[in-house]
Amino acid sequence: MTLQEFSELNSVRRLRDLARTPFDLARPNALGVGRFREYRVAMAGYDYLYATQRLDNQVLASLQALADEAGLVDQFLAMKRGAVMNRIEGLASENRQVLHTACRDVFSADPANREASAQAAEQLARLRRFLDDSGQGRLVNQRGEPFTTMVQVGIGGSDLGPRALYLALQRYQLPGRSARSIANVDPDDPAAVLAGLDLSRTLFNVVSKSGTTLETLTNEQLVRDALARAGLDPARHLLAVTGAGSPMDDPRRYLASFHMFDYIGGRYSVTSMVGGVTLGFVLGYEAFAEILAGAHAVDVAAEERSIRANIPLLMALIGIWNRNFLGHETLAVLPYSQALSRFPAHLQQCDMESNGKSVSRCGRPVAWQTGPVVWGEPGTNGQHAFYQLLHQGTTVVPAEFIGFRQSQYGRDVTVEGTTSQQKLVANMLAQSLALATGQSSDNPNRSFPGNRPNSVLLADRLSPRSMGALLALYEAKIAFQGFCWNINSFDQEGVQLGKVLAGKLLAELAERNKGMGGALAENSPEQAMLEAAGIIQ
Amino acid sequence: MTLQEFSELNSVRRLRDLARTPFDLARPNALGVGRFREYRVAMAGYDYLYATQRLDNQVLASLQALADEAGLVDQFLAMKRGAVMNRIEGLASENRQVLHTACRDVFSADPANREASAQAAEQLARLRRFLDDSGQGRLVNQRGEPFTTMVQVGIGGSDLGPRALYLALQRYQLPGRSARSIANVDPDDPAAVLAGLDLSRTLFNVVSKSGTTLETLTNEQLVRDALARAGLDPARHLLAVTGAGSPMDDPRRYLASFHMFDYIGGRYSVTSMVGGVTLGFVLGYEAFAEILAGAHAVDVAAEERSIRANIPLLMALIGIWNRNFLGHETLAVLPYSQALSRFPAHLQQCDMESNGKSVSRCGRPVAWQTGPVVWGEPGTNGQHAFYQLLHQGTTVVPAEFIGFRQSQYGRDVTVEGTTSQQKLVANMLAQSLALATGQSSDNPNRSFPGNRPNSVLLADRLSPRSMGALLALYEAKIAFQGFCWNINSFDQEGVQLGKVLAGKLLAELAERNKGMGGALAENSPEQAMLEAAGIIQ
Repeated sequence: MTLQEFSELNSVRRLRDLARTPFDLARPNALGVGRFREYRVAMAGYDYLYATQRLDNQVLASLQALADEAGLVDQFLAMKRGAVMNRIEGLASENRQVLHTACRDVFSADPANREASAQAAEQLARLRRFLDDSGQGRLVNQRGEPFTTMVQVGIGGSDLGPRALYLALQRYQLPGRSARSIANVDPDDPAAVLAGLDLSRTLFNVVSKSGTTLETLTNEQLVRDALARAGLDPARHLLAVTGAGSPMDDPRRYLASFHMFDYIGGRYSVTSMVGGVTLGFVLGYEAFAEILAGAHAVDVAAEERSIRANIPLLMALIGIWNRNFLGHETLAVLPYSQALSRFPAHLQQCDMESNGKSVSRCGRPVAWQTGPVVWGEPGTNGQHAFYQLLHQGTTVVPAEFIGFRQSQYGRDVTVEGTTSQQKLVANMLAQSLALATGQSSDNPNRSFPGNRPNSVLLADRLSPRSMGALLALYEAKIAFQGFCWNINSFDQEGVQLGKVLAGKLLAELAERNKGMGGALAENSPEQAMLEAAGIIQ
Repeated sequence: MTLQEFSELNSVRRLRDLARTPFDLARPNALGVGRFREYRVAMAGYDYLYATQRLDNQVLASLQALADEAGLVDQFLAMKRGAVMNRIEGLASENRQVLHTACRDVFSADPANREASAQAAEQLARLRRFLDDSGQGRLVNQRGEPFTTMVQVGIGGSDLGPRALYLALQRYQLPGRSARSIANVDPDDPAAVLAGLDLSRTLFNVVSKSGTTLETLTNEQLVRDALARAGLDPARHLLAVTGAGSPMDDPRRYLASFHMFDYIGGRYSVTSMVGGVTLGFVLGYEAFAEILAGAHAVDVAAEERSIRANIPLLMALIGIWNRNFLGHETLAVLPYSQALSRFPAHLQQCDMESNGKSVSRCGRPVAWQTGPVVWGEPGTNGQHAFYQLLHQGTTVVPAEFIGFRQSQYGRDVTVEGTTSQQKLVANMLAQSLALATGQSSDNPNRSFPGNRPNSVLLADRLSPRSMGALLALYEAKIAFQGFCWNINSFDQEGVQLGKVLAGKLLAELAERNKGMGGALAENSPEQAMLEAAGIIQ
């Protein structure tokens, strides 16, 4: 596979021309029935409606050409089969395979990457035995009682995805079971969580691939201390999910241990044991398998080469159209589902840590924009918060709506002739239309310029399967965009400098704690900042 | 007061010149001890450190000139005294005073606006009696038991601020008391909350100024139904906070009622009864009074005319420097405090709904950028999520860090020689430095360009008083920015079009629910979208 710089692709030049006169959504009759019927893709239980994007068939043809020219589906296939996609030519880099898709490729006789899927299946079988043991009363606390609560102790990829999915699927939790999370090194995070728990009935799932994540090790220590103070044996309450050979890979210190692998980055690890242990404990093994099946269905469907039949590929290209050609810096992800309240936070990591890059895979600084700032909150809440800016601000914010035709609980009420679920969906569609079409008025303060590009992703109900599919849709979208921008979406060198500087400041504080003076050079910026902040004198 | 368009101010021209060569934070020795000592303001318990912004004394002098020329402090004083600041010249507009500051101006004999403060004091006295009654066992349920839980039922300004403050101050809640929130019209929001409650011990505080907010009325109905099904009398479990004369202003239907006033916008209403009832119930009257005192201290200190001694004024102007002169579209608010996890969501409303505008107060379309996209998540969590893009993305995102020297719970552990609280603060300061200075490397993928402007807001501990101060710091900052941009920060016409379109879609669905065909014109975009979404055939 030859790597090609984004700015040198022929279709990029063509798209630049087309971007001079993007489709005008705000002109009269711009949105006809035919456009809504045509600009719609169905895949893996989702409908993707994109009539309210600023594009037409010419743009779509050029986006298809871009997908073909950059070999996006071929790169996706290569990734799934085990190519070393986490690398940069000519530079020291991680040089790893990227095989999160293998975690859910455990249902067929012929997986895309046999070895990784076999490793995933082995961990899954261990998980199943563990869950059977705890479900059937073989795994109990010192008093012989079953465990009711699992606390996920992890940060970043070991927190955000599992937390988002747990909240999304809380409706389906097994009777008497629930989950909590501890992530932040802020000691008030564990203090607040631990204050509300019956420790004797609680398992703590400590998750760190390297086994050296500072926040997680510190919080593990806080948890061990709290258990010991309560007269409980930490080794009977803690689980570990870590890489083989890591400092945490020591089964004697944990009730059970599971492995994660180098070829799965933290932000892509929800469907590995990183998410599996807690989600399996709370929802049951079958529900976790449904999540995997939903994700796998998307991984397979994403091999489709026609952008008009491949939702994540089309989402990726429309995102590039908005980012690189129409010039929009941000992307709002707006789920009309309270259960998805933390899904945007997961996407912030998955997208911004993957594609917030400025070096191409050829090792050169990029001469084009890469990943946008991703943010969002559930609707209808957001309508009463920041939508004012979306409609009438001076910055255009492309939006991705996510909705479901049915609620999870089915407990609804009819007010003014419609159910709450109908109000929810109607509001989402109305916002999509309003952002697109706008409205003129004699009063400029009541005018809406429209032409705010957006699209709608819609499924029947948020369930383990559709949640798995949604997760994989965004994972594939992000990978396709990275392939197209010719960046490495799978490393995160940008987090290193902050770590190094924090280490210097902490060395200073550790010396001072010991009464040893300090570790920093006099008049260094680090020392000056600690002084200005009133942390040291 | 004469309104002046932002682009016509002399200091704006001068700042445009200066923006051609902004201060280079990344050059060697750019950040000396003197800069850290000089670029620091103390006010109302907070230190604001801004050495890591791209400015120097020339820029600061011009920002001071901008503040003076635009009369920012005079406008703030006028607002507090009761001027009609919610208006646009020559256009139909709300024409209201803006007096959220009066809610906390209840401690002095000589408040800035006597009438509004008297009304606030009256409501506060009612609240105090209500809280005394419930604390002293005079207000009990049908079985004579005290109430333990209060559920805030409201959306937007009636939800985000109170929710953010409750989470921030949960550490201080009275024994046996807690709060929950129901906001979304998504029926799964109330279903999930109600499923976890002992209804007999729960009060529901229904909050809507107009008494007509669709989401809130619908959720009130769901709550009433649930109470009735449980054999409980809704009128003994529901409270109301609403405007005098609204459809909800009917004390017979509620256990207690409180008033809110036209001159306080929803997003500025946390310190009114909108936040007071739930925060008072959970934290106690004295803690709520502390919140008010903290906010009032800022409201008074914000009258200072020197930008070097006025944190919200300086934050406002630095925000304008970054937005209008250095061209940055977004602002990340990054609290290094898990308790502030929802404070950025409150700011999204307070800031983006206030300043996401494109018409000046002179009634003309603005020719300059207004409010940025505001977003953020707590650190250190964010470091493991989206900070990659902050450090190495192609978009520069200005950042505001918020931190505290001490934790709330004081339950800490020393690992590798430092406490968790030290690790938390050290990480925040290290990120501030790393974003500013960057670092070069032979490996371009390990290079950091730096010059990512940011600042740090720091107090001793997050308490009711410092939380009130933080709230008011941002409220004042947002008001100062709106004054400077010459926009009306106090209306929200941008939410209307979506409401109108949602009403059309819901009329269609209501007709269909009745088996009456539909209400929409054949082939209208609304009908086509409902069809494309599979909501109607």
